[in-house]
Amino acid sequence: MLRPTHNGDRYELTSPTAMPRAAGFLWNQKMMIQVTCRGYATAQFMQPEPAKYAYAPNLEAKTFMQPEQNYYAHHPGRFFYIKDEESGELFSAPYEPVRAPVDSYTFSVGKSDIAWTIEHLGLRIELNLSLPTADVVELWSLRVTNLSGRARKLSVYPYFPIGYMSWMNQSGEYRADLGGVVASCVTPYQKVTDYFKQKDFKDKTYFLCEEAPLAWEVQQMAFEGEGGLHAPSSISAEQMGNSDARYETPTAAVQYRLALAADESHDYRFIFGPAFDDAEIKAVRAKYLSAAAFAAAKADYAGYIAGGRGCLQINTPDQELDNFVNNWLPRQVFYHGDVNRLSTDPQTRNYLQDNMGMSFIKPSVMRAAFLHALSQQEASGAMPDGILLIEGAELKYINQVPHTDHCVWLPVALKVYLDETNDYDILNEDVVGHESGIALTVSERVSSAMDWLLQARDHRGLSYIAQGDWCDPMNMVGYKGRGVSGWLTVATAYALNLWADICEKAGASASLAESAKHFRAGASAVNKAANAHLWDGEWFARGITDDNVTFGISKDVEGRIWLNPQAWSILGGAAGEAQRASMLTQVDQQLSTPYGVQMFAPPFSAMRDDVGRVTQKHPGSAENGAVYNHAAIFYIYSLYTIGESERAYQLLRQMIPGPDEADYLQRGQLPVFIPNYYRGAYKEYPRTAGRSSQLFNTGTVSWVYRCFIEGLCGLMGDGDALLVKPQLPKHWDGIKVVREFRHATFNVSIQRADVAEIQVSCDGKRLTDARVTGIVAGGAYALDVLIPR
Amino acid sequence: MLRPTHNGDRYELTSPTAMPRAAGFLWNQKMMIQVTCRGYATAQFMQPEPAKYAYAPNLEAKTFMQPEQNYYAHHPGRFFYIKDEESGELFSAPYEPVRAPVDSYTFSVGKSDIAWTIEHLGLRIELNLSLPTADVVELWSLRVTNLSGRARKLSVYPYFPIGYMSWMNQSGEYRADLGGVVASCVTPYQKVTDYFKQKDFKDKTYFLCEEAPLAWEVQQMAFEGEGGLHAPSSISAEQMGNSDARYETPTAAVQYRLALAADESHDYRFIFGPAFDDAEIKAVRAKYLSAAAFAAAKADYAGYIAGGRGCLQINTPDQELDNFVNNWLPRQVFYHGDVNRLSTDPQTRNYLQDNMGMSFIKPSVMRAAFLHALSQQEASGAMPDGILLIEGAELKYINQVPHTDHCVWLPVALKVYLDETNDYDILNEDVVGHESGIALTVSERVSSAMDWLLQARDHRGLSYIAQGDWCDPMNMVGYKGRGVSGWLTVATAYALNLWADICEKAGASASLAESAKHFRAGASAVNKAANAHLWDGEWFARGITDDNVTFGISKDVEGRIWLNPQAWSILGGAAGEAQRASMLTQVDQQLSTPYGVQMFAPPFSAMRDDVGRVTQKHPGSAENGAVYNHAAIFYIYSLYTIGESERAYQLLRQMIPGPDEADYLQRGQLPVFIPNYYRGAYKEYPRTAGRSSQLFNTGTVSWVYRCFIEGLCGLMGDGDALLVKPQLPKHWDGIKVVREFRHATFNVSIQRADVAEIQVSCDGKRLTDARVTGIVAGGAYALDVLIPR
Repeated sequence: MLRPTHNGDRYELTSPTAMPRAAGFLWNQKMMIQVTCRGYATAQFMQPEPAKYAYAPNLEAKTFMQPEQNYYAHHPGRFFYIKDEESGELFSAPYEPVRAPVDSYTFSVGKSDIAWTIEHLGLRIELNLSLPTADVVELWSLRVTNLSGRARKLSVYPYFPIGYMSWMNQSGEYRADLGGVVASCVTPYQKVTDYFKQKDFKDKTYFLCEEAPLAWEVQQMAFEGEGGLHAPSSISAEQMGNSDARYETPTAAVQYRLALAADESHDYRFIFGPAFDDAEIKAVRAKYLSAAAFAAAKADYAGYIAGGRGCLQINTPDQELDNFVNNWLPRQVFYHGDVNRLSTDPQTRNYLQDNMGMSFIKPSVMRAAFLHALSQQEASGAMPDGILLIEGAELKYINQVPHTDHCVWLPVALKVYLDETNDYDILNEDVVGHESGIALTVSERVSSAMDWLLQARDHRGLSYIAQGDWCDPMNMVGYKGRGVSGWLTVATAYALNLWADICEKAGASASLAESAKHFRAGASAVNKAANAHLWDGEWFARGITDDNVTFGISKDVEGRIWLNPQAWSILGGAAGEAQRASMLTQVDQQLSTPYGVQMFAPPFSAMRDDVGRVTQKHPGSAENGAVYNHAAIFYIYSLYTIGESERAYQLLRQMIPGPDEADYLQRGQLPVFIPNYYRGAYKEYPRTAGRSSQLFNTGTVSWVYRCFIEGLCGLMGDGDALLVKPQLPKHWDGIKVVREFRHATFNVSIQRADVAEIQVSCDGKRLTDARVTGIVAGGAYALDVLIPR
Repeated sequence: MLRPTHNGDRYELTSPTAMPRAAGFLWNQKMMIQVTCRGYATAQFMQPEPAKYAYAPNLEAKTFMQPEQNYYAHHPGRFFYIKDEESGELFSAPYEPVRAPVDSYTFSVGKSDIAWTIEHLGLRIELNLSLPTADVVELWSLRVTNLSGRARKLSVYPYFPIGYMSWMNQSGEYRADLGGVVASCVTPYQKVTDYFKQKDFKDKTYFLCEEAPLAWEVQQMAFEGEGGLHAPSSISAEQMGNSDARYETPTAAVQYRLALAADESHDYRFIFGPAFDDAEIKAVRAKYLSAAAFAAAKADYAGYIAGGRGCLQINTPDQELDNFVNNWLPRQVFYHGDVNRLSTDPQTRNYLQDNMGMSFIKPSVMRAAFLHALSQQEASGAMPDGILLIEGAELKYINQVPHTDHCVWLPVALKVYLDETNDYDILNEDVVGHESGIALTVSERVSSAMDWLLQARDHRGLSYIAQGDWCDPMNMVGYKGRGVSGWLTVATAYALNLWADICEKAGASASLAESAKHFRAGASAVNKAANAHLWDGEWFARGITDDNVTFGISKDVEGRIWLNPQAWSILGGAAGEAQRASMLTQVDQQLSTPYGVQMFAPPFSAMRDDVGRVTQKHPGSAENGAVYNHAAIFYIYSLYTIGESERAYQLLRQMIPGPDEADYLQRGQLPVFIPNYYRGAYKEYPRTAGRSSQLFNTGTVSWVYRCFIEGLCGLMGDGDALLVKPQLPKHWDGIKVVREFRHATFNVSIQRADVAEIQVSCDGKRLTDARVTGIVAGGAYALDVLIPR
């Protein structure tokens, strides 16, 4: 097999399978490459630290969740191979890794489960995944049904790859005592202090089977063999080899033999997840791994999801829109508000906006979050870059980069909460500072934050940007300490005005009235400065750099017009009527695409280092000229505030995939969530424009829900009343709405009629204003709303 | 295709291929999971930061080179698909991704190239990879020969996956102007300061073709299609689709149509590597992409490798050993010494040992490195944890963890250099401190380092370990500041004695004589302390923890006996003759395996937190009870110093894979390098014991070369002489050796004969001592050496 050549200059191997990792290496003064006998290669070069030019297919170390994630054969997944023991035919459900064309296929995404039904070779495979409410366990069921009208002999192989767990220590074996595969690892570290942080980690992964399997493979290489994932050697064999993994990549694959009479079915259940030790695995099995426990967990989880069902049910001429707004949108809002994107240090603006959405679902959650955020306010009045949610959490990644916008979100989020609840008492709530130990009321703290915004401005009255505002990667506009943000300037005016409004409404005290005056004057000064320095003739500029270069203006070839300064100058009052008309026209002309409105255009094709990282992002992706939904929804909301119903509706509808097939295919996403962006760069890269990022973490959704509730349906709180001011698109004659508000139910019918202005009747009685007052908790009201044609 | 169900609770997709990334997500209060329609899943849970329980197949973010690297279908590699256009048959060279069983296969690792020859379907495929000496470019040639005796029509598809380059920006396209595929990315960062470090990075990857292809795919998904890597859709098609990649994973795959008459051949050449911009790509093409340029680069590179050929050629009864020692061992030593493992901050002990090996290859490199290392000595006399090689380099990873052994390696490395060169002048060389700016001589600096070692001891006279000694992950023995290292204690004595020897030999000055006395006395005190506190009856203990627990002793169930304290107590003189005999017996009994001697035994099965991370590593891998070759070679060297020739030889031979097939298969490695470890835990996990780590970075090799030169061949410098003291294994009658020494060539014949003691003749003239003196540079000497049977 091996024969060193005579001159000793070479070593030769004559089989690619005998020693599959056998490799040679070459290096030179700048690089090295190790190549295996099968063609795999690892190469590094120095620049000056080791770097790569051929990359693994995905970034797989610990990182934030990636947009537009790439999948590849060995990506983690949950697969079920089915082999006909008589014919040897093989397929896999749901589709990977065999990729056999099947007779029928359905992927079914539910609000509290995900399921597939596949029919092939005269068999029906039904898969279902659900979660319990508060444990880290996947609940998988598999039903195999014989549709062929004759007796069948099958092998069934769940394959749950566990993957490369750790370079420090990893192994796996089948544990008859626990009834499944248990893989173990040690999370690697270098520093002693990290050991104490990690020692209680759940470094075991279990895959447990309700029914004991015939055989198994726990070593990935033994599972796959030379067959590859599309035809694993251990599945081609009659029986799996019962391998274990010892510092080898572990997997969880098991084999069942299944004989099914005609029309017979068989059910399997499996659980998959992490654990600290055997005792925890045993407990999880006892708690979940049975038909009854699965059913109980599903019911409990469905109840949990139903608890986030929101406050709005609409019935419009657009059924797909109804489906999204009634079912999926509040679910996504609830996800953000209930678990804060599964982070321990959410960015302050995300935390406040995600909880703002909870005002419509569970206002008490928003209330607590608002007080929690304020408790981390700095002595200067500034809000920190992130809010720490647990003891021992730290500000990480982007939260270590100074941003200047966090205070803005306090009155923005608070306004939604107050309108929805009328809970002005919150303003007098004492909040003890996390570091200072000093108690200040909510209103004192918000005022202090607003004063911080007022002072964080330059000699012209424009707001400093430091290393970023809402746009994280705009990190080089002001890193030298002089650059200002056009958006933050007009947003500061909005925040100040909102807070002045709140102070006025809260009323009673002289000090609040004084605050209202003070901040109203501040807003006015800010808006004056914005108009003096940022109005470019047809729209507002995005900012002015450290070196005094105004950008986001007509003479820019890239990044010429940005959406946010326009939207927020409408909200904050910087833009007068003529300016608004001009801006809207320019947005239509320069930013609109069939998939939504772009965050700015044209996208940057190369780094502009007086603007920053945003200009290095891929054109049309993420912040670089994408249809970045969070920016789009601010704009849509601003349109509703000025009665631009038609424009607002068009853009809102574009945010949801469908309804036509071409749109689904281009976006590549089901309308079960709104992604953080769709690809923009519509002019530059039409092939990819509209494609979904697939990333469901986004501050967008609270605002989308708000736009439907307060904008399109126009059913918004105002002091002790419900305001009624619907803004339907022209082509709708009417809609029906159920609105939960202040613990009462409003059954609303909105119809176009020959009226000059809106007419509202409550329980058959015509109201003088379009306001419902005297709302009684627990009550039900029928509202008939007539609007002009 | 899409049908929302009536109750609006679900979304359903009825094709797995139309929207391949379509996904649903579920979450609960502790976790979230996103599952695609095809079964891929991304799941995270909180503990308290986001964590995984199903892992990607490899750790792919920037990291040090991994041992026992795992490969999987989409791992980076260099592949060539060959399709018979008439029959449609497909295979790939060298083997992946099609994995077709071929008629014949040879993987051939040369000293300056790597090649394959594959025959299949009546075709011969010859692949060759080489590198130029100082540019980051892979030079690939492909020859296709028609052996079938009839005309053939083929398509030939080089496939060089580029992979997931960056989440910030990635793209790729075929560039007719440059003649190949160019992929671009932006290295991601969060902090402004990192931008300036990264802006000149080579963020482009090129794959250039000497001959223009017919068609190409630059988008990985378009290349692969539904066929998968084993049967890519773009290869099943008649012609590739000329895709580009826009924020999609790029790849480099091209198609050639090739018509070959019987016996005809066709040659292709390709280059692959990173570049900063188009101009660099153009220049690289002009410089390398032609038959003549390939040949010139190969010749130049072969010259570079030949420049590291070393100072020893042996001719023994063991041809495989000869091949390794004459060809591969000096190559690996040269690799370490010439490029310092492609690091900018090598650990100080690695840097000194890697350069120690250069004493045998290019002594001037060792000299410069030694002075460079000393220039980074701290004012206290301590050596830093790593040596910075370039301006702007930083101590990273493990080099931020305090270790206490670095000073030891100064006299150890210096001794080899002085014996090889007799360049005692180096001791008077001035070295200006990198931070202090103060000039001190080499001897002053080494003395200062030795005094640092003497003071870094506790009240018992034992050496503090802090967070590690030679054994990096022994990080918790002394992190509280009290624990001591048994190995470092006896190694300190060795270092002090070596330095005293050097001072004595350097002679002349009174101050050096004084130093010799001072350090000799120090060594004696250290050894006395070692014997008082660390001798366990039959071997030396490994250390004493912060809490005064002695470990590495007979009553320990795991980690009972460690190799290093035994080896270095022999070298440093702590062990008397009776102790040595007892230790050797215990090492034989407790640590030996068919694949070498284990670093310690039994391996730890679980964390011992008064010892540290080493006890968490996978049992039998890396430092946890592996056959860790660096520890093994210290022991072997110590055996040669006490004339234990037979034991030494056996262990030395075990370090090289082979010669029998079973041994190759178990280790899974060709004998073209010595890996840092072979799996140990021979008793606990016999299935995996002996398996190679495949990792060729290791401080082992300098010592292996030294053992062959100074130990087995016994041809070692001593002042102005060459000492002759061979130590052949018993079953060898004789060997022939060519030894380059002090610019002279010694042709040595060593034979067993009926002599009572060694007899040496030089050019036919019997020498009184076994020492050759009066060596003239440029001379050639014939040595006849007779040794007792």
